[in-house]
Amino acid sequence: MPMLSDPSAKYRPFPQVNLPDRQWPTRTITAPPRWLSTDLRDGNQSIIDPMDRAKKTRFFDLLVEVGVKEVEVGFPAAGQTEFDFISWLVQSGKVPEDVVVQVLTQSREDLITRSFESLEGAHSAIVHLYNAVSPAWRDIVFRMSRDEVREIAVRGAQLLVDEAAKRPGTKWQFEYSPETFSTAELDFSLEVCEAVMNVVGPTKDWPIILNLPATVEAATPNIYADQIEYFCRNLPNREAAVISLHTHNDRGTGVAAAELGLMAGADRIEGCLFGNGERTGNCCLVTVALNMYTQGIDPELDFSDIDKVIETVEYCNELPVHQRHPYGGELVFTAFSGSHQDAIKKGFEAHDQQNDEQWRVPYLPIDPADLGRDYEAVIRVNSQSGKGGFAWVLQQMQGLKLPKKLQADFSKHVQFMADDTGRELNAPDIWECFKKTYYLQVENRKFALVDYDEARAADGDKVFTGTIKVDGEEQRVSGRGKGLISSVLATIRETYGLDFEVRDYSEHALGTGVDSRAAAYIEWALPDGRSGWGVGIDDDVATASVRAILSAANGAAHGPGTQKF
Amino acid sequence: MPMLSDPSAKYRPFPQVNLPDRQWPTRTITAPPRWLSTDLRDGNQSIIDPMDRAKKTRFFDLLVEVGVKEVEVGFPAAGQTEFDFISWLVQSGKVPEDVVVQVLTQSREDLITRSFESLEGAHSAIVHLYNAVSPAWRDIVFRMSRDEVREIAVRGAQLLVDEAAKRPGTKWQFEYSPETFSTAELDFSLEVCEAVMNVVGPTKDWPIILNLPATVEAATPNIYADQIEYFCRNLPNREAAVISLHTHNDRGTGVAAAELGLMAGADRIEGCLFGNGERTGNCCLVTVALNMYTQGIDPELDFSDIDKVIETVEYCNELPVHQRHPYGGELVFTAFSGSHQDAIKKGFEAHDQQNDEQWRVPYLPIDPADLGRDYEAVIRVNSQSGKGGFAWVLQQMQGLKLPKKLQADFSKHVQFMADDTGRELNAPDIWECFKKTYYLQVENRKFALVDYDEARAADGDKVFTGTIKVDGEEQRVSGRGKGLISSVLATIRETYGLDFEVRDYSEHALGTGVDSRAAAYIEWALPDGRSGWGVGIDDDVATASVRAILSAANGAAHGPGTQKF
Repeated sequence: MPMLSDPSAKYRPFPQVNLPDRQWPTRTITAPPRWLSTDLRDGNQSIIDPMDRAKKTRFFDLLVEVGVKEVEVGFPAAGQTEFDFISWLVQSGKVPEDVVVQVLTQSREDLITRSFESLEGAHSAIVHLYNAVSPAWRDIVFRMSRDEVREIAVRGAQLLVDEAAKRPGTKWQFEYSPETFSTAELDFSLEVCEAVMNVVGPTKDWPIILNLPATVEAATPNIYADQIEYFCRNLPNREAAVISLHTHNDRGTGVAAAELGLMAGADRIEGCLFGNGERTGNCCLVTVALNMYTQGIDPELDFSDIDKVIETVEYCNELPVHQRHPYGGELVFTAFSGSHQDAIKKGFEAHDQQNDEQWRVPYLPIDPADLGRDYEAVIRVNSQSGKGGFAWVLQQMQGLKLPKKLQADFSKHVQFMADDTGRELNAPDIWECFKKTYYLQVENRKFALVDYDEARAADGDKVFTGTIKVDGEEQRVSGRGKGLISSVLATIRETYGLDFEVRDYSEHALGTGVDSRAAAYIEWALPDGRSGWGVGIDDDVATASVRAILSAANGAAHGPGTQKF
Repeated sequence: MPMLSDPSAKYRPFPQVNLPDRQWPTRTITAPPRWLSTDLRDGNQSIIDPMDRAKKTRFFDLLVEVGVKEVEVGFPAAGQTEFDFISWLVQSGKVPEDVVVQVLTQSREDLITRSFESLEGAHSAIVHLYNAVSPAWRDIVFRMSRDEVREIAVRGAQLLVDEAAKRPGTKWQFEYSPETFSTAELDFSLEVCEAVMNVVGPTKDWPIILNLPATVEAATPNIYADQIEYFCRNLPNREAAVISLHTHNDRGTGVAAAELGLMAGADRIEGCLFGNGERTGNCCLVTVALNMYTQGIDPELDFSDIDKVIETVEYCNELPVHQRHPYGGELVFTAFSGSHQDAIKKGFEAHDQQNDEQWRVPYLPIDPADLGRDYEAVIRVNSQSGKGGFAWVLQQMQGLKLPKKLQADFSKHVQFMADDTGRELNAPDIWECFKKTYYLQVENRKFALVDYDEARAADGDKVFTGTIKVDGEEQRVSGRGKGLISSVLATIRETYGLDFEVRDYSEHALGTGVDSRAAAYIEWALPDGRSGWGVGIDDDVATASVRAILSAANGAAHGPGTQKF
């Protein structure tokens, strides 16, 4: 089915909100909202490989460290694993006094009871109740009338009150979400929320959280802001409610919707670090917080070591933070264009000379140092490289696809060369540096392979017999093991006393065709704590492995080869 | 330097625009803008490895195919390569009659002349002049007064007029950008643009393009909309100007700024496919266009084969489209959560039964089929897998890191199994499927390795001598080549008549430690046009390669192993 040349039969424009005297476009954000991370719930339910307990714990600890005070930790009634994690977490003592865990539940008696049970022993907790109120869901998914839908919410709210009353040891808060709020009739959402408030009886000092999700983003972000302002202005007993936003990014404007929604009167934002979450993701909390920061507002979230945050988030979600993701992406502080580089350099020079602290460096909306980043833009001004840079250069020029950890190892040597030469490094420079660092050429190395044979012993072991030039003198050496690599390692260990542990190994072809060359990479460690990488390149895949081990031996004997620059 | 607890000394809130009677919040987008792709300029200057001519041509052809009518093809005065490409392109006959190329130039005589020279022979062209007008650039980068800055623009405009007059064979249009418009004083931008218009003398029928860049995104997107509306309302001779938007994404709201800017009166949008461009990228043209599409407006850009667009963009930029990128990301039509899956299924059922075409499937803001996508969400409802899914399963369970093309090859077999069994596939199912597809177990395969030796001949060739079980009967076989792989391939060719070409090869360890197992992957092709993948896993890296070739031989002899499900 091709894309319709006239999509008007299939899709309808989203209706405007009748709010001619809207106030939000004249407002600015002047204070941080309450932040709720749903990384362990909306985020976790949308990743290919959901987090295990170790990953959830690591993510929870990160959120606490960053300063998030409200964390949605799961959907306890969804299954035993989920229930057990939540139950374990609240009893583990890992939840600080000033952090509140939140759990999500549909509005059904058994699920609500189960949710309260999972929170046994929590010092404080938010139970988050939801049911779908929008017409598509009422008509297609549930086939219910408005009255029936409102009654589901009211019954659920009553259960919250009853279950909480049975458990006075915990300081309870309630949250209610009229699901897919942004595509529901505003007056119906108000009607349902009012009915829920009537049951719960919130006050200014003990408010209910009303969360107004754009479950699926369906309009330009100003419409969402109109909806929020309309809701806030028409909600009776407004001061007894905390208005919370939960935006998604289906139209690429989830952050904008959250920001305009704050201007429209909301108090709280739900989202995920780096915008994980169903489909296109939730609102990115990092972006909204740092957007505030660059306006001089303390977001009360700490991203001063953003690389650590990225590392944990990527590890737990098994999804990358994109190279161009605001604030966090690898290319965000990079300028490849000469005029940009020049303006940035002048900006840094002016910054060093000015009398106030004010940040006004061209092309850099935030000081990279505030995020714990080096001034990569400037470094790249000098070296044109950076990690991504030289990795691409080596891939484009030599076909090498370096493992990430090897990139990190090599980057130190590139940086050393860039600083030492004081000029822009070009591709041949980087290749020279690589060859020297990993002993890919004959000069100045202790060990060099002359030739070798590999035979099979009667017991199935492999026997390596080779000629190695050691400090220019050929030696016949031999060793055995279960495979090629272990037989070479045995040779090196028994002959030269280098007892390598191989931590990682990979190999790939350098082109296509039968006889294309191959590159092998070995991460090594020695019992004395030293470690590094060996690299071997050869016409033969097996020989490339052998060369990589000799490269490792050279690295162990000399230290990595940069001192020769 | 840690993140400041009080950032107010370093950063200032962005000032509001005084526009109490703003109209844009009451408007909606009802027609598509003029689209300008700057993929080959802003995009190309910000990627690690700039495109060569072949890639630029491929990208240009894609843009034409998608329906983009205005393409910024480069910065001709930046260097000879850039100049030569542009010159070649306009003379190649590749630019259709209804497509206009655009080139960018700073306001300097030699650069402007050079830009015109690069366009020699073009049927039509836009010359895009810019200079920086904002205070940070005036003060820090150029140290110039307002008058000096305005004069630079005026002199450049006069040169445009003069150079165009010398070349009447081309239909010329002019574009002027007051650079970093969004952080400049609005009245000064108006003053400079008016001065430029006075020189150029545009009319309603031959308008000038005034491009108003948010070179660095510095405020919430409503501020940008205010700036655009203010500019449009205060520009004399407004009907003789096409107002163009060029937003960046430093605050994650580049798409929102472009959309609100259109509502504020703009006529044209500059951006890149999937938001490539300096730092955090430009406005994503795909997202803005498809956002319109889902409101029933024909964007006049065709993304009905979005996977092809992604493939080309990723190939040319060497940057991925993120898994959660609106419309294009791999996970955008995926629902892992049971309740979402259920709602989507019901939505599809209702869609099949309704009398009109209107799209209202929960959680899917656009029909995936309109983008040439299969209903992956639904497929994943059945299989829980999809490409990403099984790849993760195999990596998590077995440590296998399948090459992307092998993933694509294997996905057909997974899908076949999912459809055939009609139930959710679990991890052991996928592993069974993998082993059968690539003949990793003894049953039902023609060729099986028993053992082998590899020796070195006098001339340095490798000699493979092995025992292979063929249909259960052991045979001694032998062959020689320059390396291990070529000697095994020679054996297979000479003994069994299978003349493999190896298109790709890679290998990696399955764990850490000396004797950890390794997996080898070989993409093969035969002279008769058949092709496929072979996989070998063994305790020894060399033997894994040999096994991968025998796996290929089994695939060639039997066809891939799925028929046995």
